[in-house]
Amino acid sequence: MPILYHHWLSPSARFVRALLVEKRVAFELRLEKEWERRPAFLALNPAGEVPVLVMDDGHAYSGTMAIAEYLEEVIPEPPMLIGDAEDRYEIRRLTGWFHNKLGTEVTRHTVSEKLFKRFLRMGEPDSEAIRCASHNLKVHLKYISYLSERRHYLAGPQFTMADAAAAAHISVVDYFGDINWEDWPQVKEWYVRVKSRRSVRALLEDRITGLKPPAHYSELDF
Amino acid sequence: MPILYHHWLSPSARFVRALLVEKRVAFELRLEKEWERRPAFLALNPAGEVPVLVMDDGHAYSGTMAIAEYLEEVIPEPPMLIGDAEDRYEIRRLTGWFHNKLGTEVTRHTVSEKLFKRFLRMGEPDSEAIRCASHNLKVHLKYISYLSERRHYLAGPQFTMADAAAAAHISVVDYFGDINWEDWPQVKEWYVRVKSRRSVRALLEDRITGLKPPAHYSELDF
Repeated sequence: MPILYHHWLSPSARFVRALLVEKRVAFELRLEKEWERRPAFLALNPAGEVPVLVMDDGHAYSGTMAIAEYLEEVIPEPPMLIGDAEDRYEIRRLTGWFHNKLGTEVTRHTVSEKLFKRFLRMGEPDSEAIRCASHNLKVHLKYISYLSERRHYLAGPQFTMADAAAAAHISVVDYFGDINWEDWPQVKEWYVRVKSRRSVRALLEDRITGLKPPAHYSELDF
Repeated sequence: MPILYHHWLSPSARFVRALLVEKRVAFELRLEKEWERRPAFLALNPAGEVPVLVMDDGHAYSGTMAIAEYLEEVIPEPPMLIGDAEDRYEIRRLTGWFHNKLGTEVTRHTVSEKLFKRFLRMGEPDSEAIRCASHNLKVHLKYISYLSERRHYLAGPQFTMADAAAAAHISVVDYFGDINWEDWPQVKEWYVRVKSRRSVRALLEDRITGLKPPAHYSELDF
């Protein structure tokens, strides 16, 4: 069975997990504390980052988008890149937007400050970074709201890679209770829709001992 | 004619420029000082970043990898993703590695400190960031050296997206004279090879008034 190295609140690992479930690939999830820089893990991926997917033949795949595109090529059904070249462009643009913009401007700060520094005590929390992430989050929620007013899923009528990417990041931010859902009814409608999928639901089962998410976190209708 | 919005030392814009030349697409290059956040440019790409490619029909494309994959789909020849799914995975992994790892650990610091802060005087240079980038650069040159000892181009026998990405970043770093080429004969051999391509040579023609690159910068054999 393929093995996916992940850690709890890595949005990139959550994204690949969701794709694997969508594509009905059975896999074993293995926790990798990448910050421990375990030599055997570095041998799998010199970048030292999750996700790493090890297939049955022992080949290791790393690099979030490289894995996603590879899965799309070797397991085309159900497709996570749908439609013609223009549609596929839009899906990839949004997927990149969530991983790069939302990731850099929000999720990275949230995880670094609230998980690594505050909870795991690996350094002094930086309240400026937390404020910054909180401000940027609103800009991104506004964008998701704009998209979901116009489309059933974020890139069009069907669930695609773009929804998997957005759900991966939003679920991490929501673990810390950082989203005031009452203010974002349109985003909530989209999130209720993706939460009802097995692929996203599976992400919401992870718990970090001693660090509880808010009560609504894994509720499908909240 | 398609228009590519770029600025001098954006590795992402250089990467897309190289792909366009490889695919023999004639285009007009337009300088965009993205930090000025010009409203008409933000309308083309809400992320406010170059590269943005505007096609003849007025459609604007943004997101470095989304553009690269789109070009590959609509202009398949010559291919920049070559071979079977495994080969294509390796090309994408390396392309992502250069944009994300080399980009975050080296190029971003170099451009931010040496272009924006030191030259354009947009802030106080951070000597720690410069030291950090210089240390990380060696790690990356070692990796490129390792790859080019084993392969004619970085991902295999032919020039691919991975070489375009590496050349985009290396050419930016080399503009500041940060690479001591004598220490990296293997990397130099690869770089001489890619510099001889029209697509990479074109990148080396840009000059920033008042900020000269080293004498060897655009020499094909240096």
